[in-house]
Amino acid sequence: MKIIKPTLLIDEAKCRRNIARMVERAKCNNCIFRPHFKTHQSLEIGEWFREVGVDKIAVSSLGMANYFADGGWKDITVAIPVNLLEIEMINDLASRIQLNLVLESEASIQFLERQLHSPVDLFIKIDMGYQRTGIAVENRGKLKRLTQLLEKSNLLRFRGFLGHAGNSYEARSHSEIGHIHKTCMQKLAELRKAFSPTFPNLIISIGDTPTCSRAEDFTEVDELRAGNFVFYDLMQVQIGACNPEDIAVCMACPVIALHEDRQEAILYGGGVHFSKDRLADESGQTIWGKIVSAEDKGWGSIEEGIYLKKLSQEHGTIYGPADFINRLQIGDIIKILPVHSCMTADCMKEYLTTEGRKIEMWDGK
Amino acid sequence: MKIIKPTLLIDEAKCRRNIARMVERAKCNNCIFRPHFKTHQSLEIGEWFREVGVDKIAVSSLGMANYFADGGWKDITVAIPVNLLEIEMINDLASRIQLNLVLESEASIQFLERQLHSPVDLFIKIDMGYQRTGIAVENRGKLKRLTQLLEKSNLLRFRGFLGHAGNSYEARSHSEIGHIHKTCMQKLAELRKAFSPTFPNLIISIGDTPTCSRAEDFTEVDELRAGNFVFYDLMQVQIGACNPEDIAVCMACPVIALHEDRQEAILYGGGVHFSKDRLADESGQTIWGKIVSAEDKGWGSIEEGIYLKKLSQEHGTIYGPADFINRLQIGDIIKILPVHSCMTADCMKEYLTTEGRKIEMWDGK
Repeated sequence: MKIIKPTLLIDEAKCRRNIARMVERAKCNNCIFRPHFKTHQSLEIGEWFREVGVDKIAVSSLGMANYFADGGWKDITVAIPVNLLEIEMINDLASRIQLNLVLESEASIQFLERQLHSPVDLFIKIDMGYQRTGIAVENRGKLKRLTQLLEKSNLLRFRGFLGHAGNSYEARSHSEIGHIHKTCMQKLAELRKAFSPTFPNLIISIGDTPTCSRAEDFTEVDELRAGNFVFYDLMQVQIGACNPEDIAVCMACPVIALHEDRQEAILYGGGVHFSKDRLADESGQTIWGKIVSAEDKGWGSIEEGIYLKKLSQEHGTIYGPADFINRLQIGDIIKILPVHSCMTADCMKEYLTTEGRKIEMWDGK
Repeated sequence: MKIIKPTLLIDEAKCRRNIARMVERAKCNNCIFRPHFKTHQSLEIGEWFREVGVDKIAVSSLGMANYFADGGWKDITVAIPVNLLEIEMINDLASRIQLNLVLESEASIQFLERQLHSPVDLFIKIDMGYQRTGIAVENRGKLKRLTQLLEKSNLLRFRGFLGHAGNSYEARSHSEIGHIHKTCMQKLAELRKAFSPTFPNLIISIGDTPTCSRAEDFTEVDELRAGNFVFYDLMQVQIGACNPEDIAVCMACPVIALHEDRQEAILYGGGVHFSKDRLADESGQTIWGKIVSAEDKGWGSIEEGIYLKKLSQEHGTIYGPADFINRLQIGDIIKILPVHSCMTADCMKEYLTTEGRKIEMWDGK
């Protein structure tokens, strides 16, 4: 299939390899593997997980849970503090699948107690240091009050603690990831010590791609919930969570203008395609993507010194050495590794495999 | 209609007022009004323009042109250097509407000469100082070569020069917008002087919302092509292009967690809803949105000191004074003015009017 406009390519082989590796890591560490499907948001890519034995997933909204439930997934964790306003969808999902919700407040427990019609499993959101959501692991008093409330409930079953070490995104090497992970593991060990006497079947679930990809000791973890690893991206390379060769998605965009005097090529491909997520590269330069060699099927390695330097709504500006820019022609296709694959996939709403087959995604509604 | 998840509200009255004002400005300045529809991307909102006499539009992709052509628009400018790879769609559109394309290279002219089946009008993209696309107004030699090539063509009709003073986005006041505009007008005057002897019916088209909203002298301009003004946003307020009361869209998001100790409320509403466009406010703080008072229908004025301080894929973090955060409850709806309404609309893919009616958008495919 000829590429004629901004297209999100997926390399199925790389993607399946990323999946296989994470399945293996979960197995070696005696962890339940519950991949987060918010990255790919696709029933077809979900099947690649099912083929290697995955039957539990995490998602980031009730709408997304509904999409995957309709696609036959029977055990879904909505890994974000539950949106009480969607109680109708919660009740619908709870009546037809094993629905696992996340919360961190007494008010949410009381609301669900009153409004739920079917049983759901509940995870208490813990904060392992990221300070986005969750109760600090050290705040035993509040954690205990919530577990006690859940114990008294008929339809809410306390299953464990769910955390996301988003602070691992601050790491810039394999060893920095290890260091952050170690601190988290100490916190989780104390948490388990405090709660396992009352709840021997407690599940501790963690989910960030950097530690799930690189850390070594998962003694304190029962469930791995990573998501981004299915594709990885430049941000994960910078963090030290993967190698550039592991990145399984790549944008392909047409050149629509050339400005050799500024060493720039202008692409049809902007913020509505890539998202506006960016990073500061090794030299401190803000970039929105890195260029890879364009092969007939798929893509090759990163072309050093060539990057996406600016994005507006539909335009992207590539900067590169004169000999690269001068060789380009209007109508050429440039291939670009995304900074943040989850966001890019969400923008693009479909994939094209390097073999030329379209893969559909959830439409987000 | 009850809001239960991230929703893009539109205030139809404000929106129609913004449209009416720009229609009036174009009329007073003897300019053709060709609004850019990439901001709203909606047939229904397009009708609000049609009702006040608009029959020419600009869009930012051939796909979007196709969507509006299907909706009955007969004169469409695709205001981005033409993507030659979509020649099939170009030919289809050229056969059924007045299609106006933009280009800046001899290669594109030669390609279209060979491949076009129906006549199209052509604008040469000029650079008025923004340095994204276009030929510098001072580069008379190249501009002349392109017009000469177009003159020889059968199906390509040279209509004029099209520029976008994107540099007006650097302005921070009404008077700074005026200053940038003045420089642009001087460039356009020289351009007209050079080309109007050969092309007396030359059209000079410009399109940025800041100058179209605030500048006063449009003597050198024949066509206004602004788009963002239909909604405006926080970026335009910061630039000095509008007042906060002019902003016609607003995100409504549920509170899903409260962290009073950090003076934070966590929303269901993240980068996939708002986009990741951000700005540095007066105090240098990076923000992703500002909170407005939530009224039953619509929204009120900006609540000073309360803002969207962080966005991840599905979560947003609101920071505000203790007395604001402490009053919130999980399940409340927070209303937030977006930083960049074009990008937020593109993420959301539909609107809800403050009267409770859904408005559809192009699905982007």
